[in-house]
Amino acid sequence: MLKNLMSYFFVLSSVILPAQNISDSLMLSSIYKTSLLNGKAYDWLDYMTNQIGGRLSGSLNAERSVQWAKEELEDLELDKVWLQPVLVPKWVRGPKEFALIETEPGVTFNVPITALGGSVATPSVGLKAEVIEVQNFEELAVLGRENIDGKIVFFNRPMQADLISTFSAYGGCVNQRYDGAREASRYGAIGVIVRSMNLRMDDYPHTGAMSYGDQPVSQRIPAAAISTNAAEKLSNLLKIAPKLKFLFRQQCKQYEDVLSYNVIGEITGSEYPDEIILVGGHLDSWDIGDGAHDDGAGCVQSMEVLRLFKLLDYKPKRTLRVVLFMNEENGLRGGRKYAEVATSKGETHIFALESDAGGFSPRGFNFDTSDHEFAQVKSWKNLFKPYLIHYFEKGGSGADVGPLKTKTNVLAGLRPDSQRYFDHHHAATDTFEAVNKRELELGAATLTSLIYLYDNYGLVGGTPIDSQ
Amino acid sequence: MLKNLMSYFFVLSSVILPAQNISDSLMLSSIYKTSLLNGKAYDWLDYMTNQIGGRLSGSLNAERSVQWAKEELEDLELDKVWLQPVLVPKWVRGPKEFALIETEPGVTFNVPITALGGSVATPSVGLKAEVIEVQNFEELAVLGRENIDGKIVFFNRPMQADLISTFSAYGGCVNQRYDGAREASRYGAIGVIVRSMNLRMDDYPHTGAMSYGDQPVSQRIPAAAISTNAAEKLSNLLKIAPKLKFLFRQQCKQYEDVLSYNVIGEITGSEYPDEIILVGGHLDSWDIGDGAHDDGAGCVQSMEVLRLFKLLDYKPKRTLRVVLFMNEENGLRGGRKYAEVATSKGETHIFALESDAGGFSPRGFNFDTSDHEFAQVKSWKNLFKPYLIHYFEKGGSGADVGPLKTKTNVLAGLRPDSQRYFDHHHAATDTFEAVNKRELELGAATLTSLIYLYDNYGLVGGTPIDSQ
Repeated sequence: MLKNLMSYFFVLSSVILPAQNISDSLMLSSIYKTSLLNGKAYDWLDYMTNQIGGRLSGSLNAERSVQWAKEELEDLELDKVWLQPVLVPKWVRGPKEFALIETEPGVTFNVPITALGGSVATPSVGLKAEVIEVQNFEELAVLGRENIDGKIVFFNRPMQADLISTFSAYGGCVNQRYDGAREASRYGAIGVIVRSMNLRMDDYPHTGAMSYGDQPVSQRIPAAAISTNAAEKLSNLLKIAPKLKFLFRQQCKQYEDVLSYNVIGEITGSEYPDEIILVGGHLDSWDIGDGAHDDGAGCVQSMEVLRLFKLLDYKPKRTLRVVLFMNEENGLRGGRKYAEVATSKGETHIFALESDAGGFSPRGFNFDTSDHEFAQVKSWKNLFKPYLIHYFEKGGSGADVGPLKTKTNVLAGLRPDSQRYFDHHHAATDTFEAVNKRELELGAATLTSLIYLYDNYGLVGGTPIDSQ
Repeated sequence: MLKNLMSYFFVLSSVILPAQNISDSLMLSSIYKTSLLNGKAYDWLDYMTNQIGGRLSGSLNAERSVQWAKEELEDLELDKVWLQPVLVPKWVRGPKEFALIETEPGVTFNVPITALGGSVATPSVGLKAEVIEVQNFEELAVLGRENIDGKIVFFNRPMQADLISTFSAYGGCVNQRYDGAREASRYGAIGVIVRSMNLRMDDYPHTGAMSYGDQPVSQRIPAAAISTNAAEKLSNLLKIAPKLKFLFRQQCKQYEDVLSYNVIGEITGSEYPDEIILVGGHLDSWDIGDGAHDDGAGCVQSMEVLRLFKLLDYKPKRTLRVVLFMNEENGLRGGRKYAEVATSKGETHIFALESDAGGFSPRGFNFDTSDHEFAQVKSWKNLFKPYLIHYFEKGGSGADVGPLKTKTNVLAGLRPDSQRYFDHHHAATDTFEAVNKRELELGAATLTSLIYLYDNYGLVGGTPIDSQ
């Protein structure tokens, strides 16, 4: 099949490339063509999201996704497929949360709200108190205990809309969600609500991880996110009724860690089997959506990489491994466990690539690597031009592959168009319908193409001597 | 306001540029920032799509959009706003169409169908006949009258999914829709149905223009499009029941031309008022959706260009004109009339830019120009890099601005990401909800930036001597 595709593209190809790149150019053409015409990523995503659904670590759905992914990888007839045990946190949301604003007794407005992952519950009748609105932790210090004690702190710093990268905008305000409860409780706050990390004005609250650090259990206060529309409404009402009260009720609970798994599949390399190339995403997701963009898309694209190589009858020189990590969202236990086992076995990962930024039109990659290795990446840039892949920048890769970094290897992350990502991130809107089939398939082909190039050329530095 | 924004960006800017480009770089920063933080395009689009809706040439909605756009431009306090009269075709769909497949008497399957724009009606009870499926006009010739006479021809060539540009895929099969009826009737066909121009498998039929050329009215046969799912179903049923019958009914009608208008607004140039720079989209749309991507987005983005300049207190050297063309979809009368009037007045359009490829994340532009002028465009490419605008290619511009081409001027078209465009194009799914606010605003800023550069630098060749 590859041969036919190649001769087809040899005729069609209008890209002018140096002679040594023609076979690479033809291979990329075959990869994109096969992904778009015979892709399976979209059907897989349909199953993950519509038949399984949200896959919170420790949940039954997460375990169903482990078994399903293992079976699907086994169907690809890889050289090895296995489960890697890992203990994960088990936090359970409980019944749907409830919240309202009471401007005066009897005058109330319901508010879309979601508990933050890891939060403690409110009292079973709910938590009701006055609200103090702040933009950041510095304001807490200025206000001091005398203005905060006994109140609910409302963090309302919006994502910065004029940043082109929505991930930069997210990075600029996610500390309110992650550390807000711990910071506010230092000044006597009894609860925290956070404006959802969402650039759109809508009625969907966005959940996500928070942490109490090493705070004693008795000092932990409940934390939740409200929708962007609700945040604007609350802020406006506070201007005219500063003594209004906010009530919220959530019954979430943290259990003991439970056993779960990373799902791993491998095609063993024919020439350099000890040089491992990894592509992956994370199986777990938040529970209030179906985890389609975050990160069902990254999982099915990573599975597709190995499937496309099988379909094209491509025999890798190096060992290609797909890893579907467990528990990226609230613990990163899967990513850490994978790196720990790799170290203990003395494995050498020369390249690890993660797709965890949504199933949107791929634009390129970020690389965590030396300038020396990055020069090779840049030499490949023209090969991607026919597919409108243009973004090749240093800085960042992916949370799950991060622990694999060595002095010599290369980590990378796929960078799809980011404009719509936070419309769906950690919200009920992260569903199958929000993913476009072609965009998902183009992402899979883009991952496959870069994996192919690393398989073909390896690292510039030769076989690394320091794998961990 | 501009000054403040500029000093803000001077501090933030991390882009290394030659000294002569720093002021351009700051201006682009201000443009993008203002569009994302204080944009009006999205609110305008909400009005156009949800308060007015589909705007088929000659319809009451089209006239409402003319009046609305004129008022909105007047509110911008431009130097001139006017309506340019143009006669447009008036084709009316009539009651909702109906179709079914009858595999045997009493066994029927309903089919989502839409009349093609310009088609004649079926008999009032509908048209019912056997079906012959073909992929292209060559097959018609091979089959000949003996196999086609008295039948409905079913054109079922899909859009080629392995092309990266969905516009190329559209170009590769739209002749079935545009010329299919005329071609099929030469062999005695009594009706034509076409697979919708859609890369997605779904239940939405996509309309669009067709033409009978100079065929006598008596020889014209009705033509309609069915959804992609229905096309697959019909094709499969034909394999097992080749004698099945297809019934469709449509009551569309062509009326005499009616008076309509292009809507035009202008900021007169301070240094070179006779050098006109145009930005535009088309006001009219098909009637079965709300014309959000096609081309409400292009209209509100073009209006936003002049609004942003006013907001930034930028005084153009050259005359900047926004033109909202009427009747791009089924006649191009507005684009032709505009060029005709420009010629008769001896106007010189040095640059004309159209946005008519959807309100998706902008990727760049296509240019219809000489290599000489294109060299200048390429010298600006780095200025756009912070906004992920990377696509600058020769070839094509926009249908409405096409008639303005001279030997010396430059025409261009905005090129947004094209992957989702044909999910919505000419279908009921072309609604406000399908447009993302940030993507729309980034497109507006991208148009504004290129217009700014042409205003600042003009053409390389100096003032053109041949304006038409």
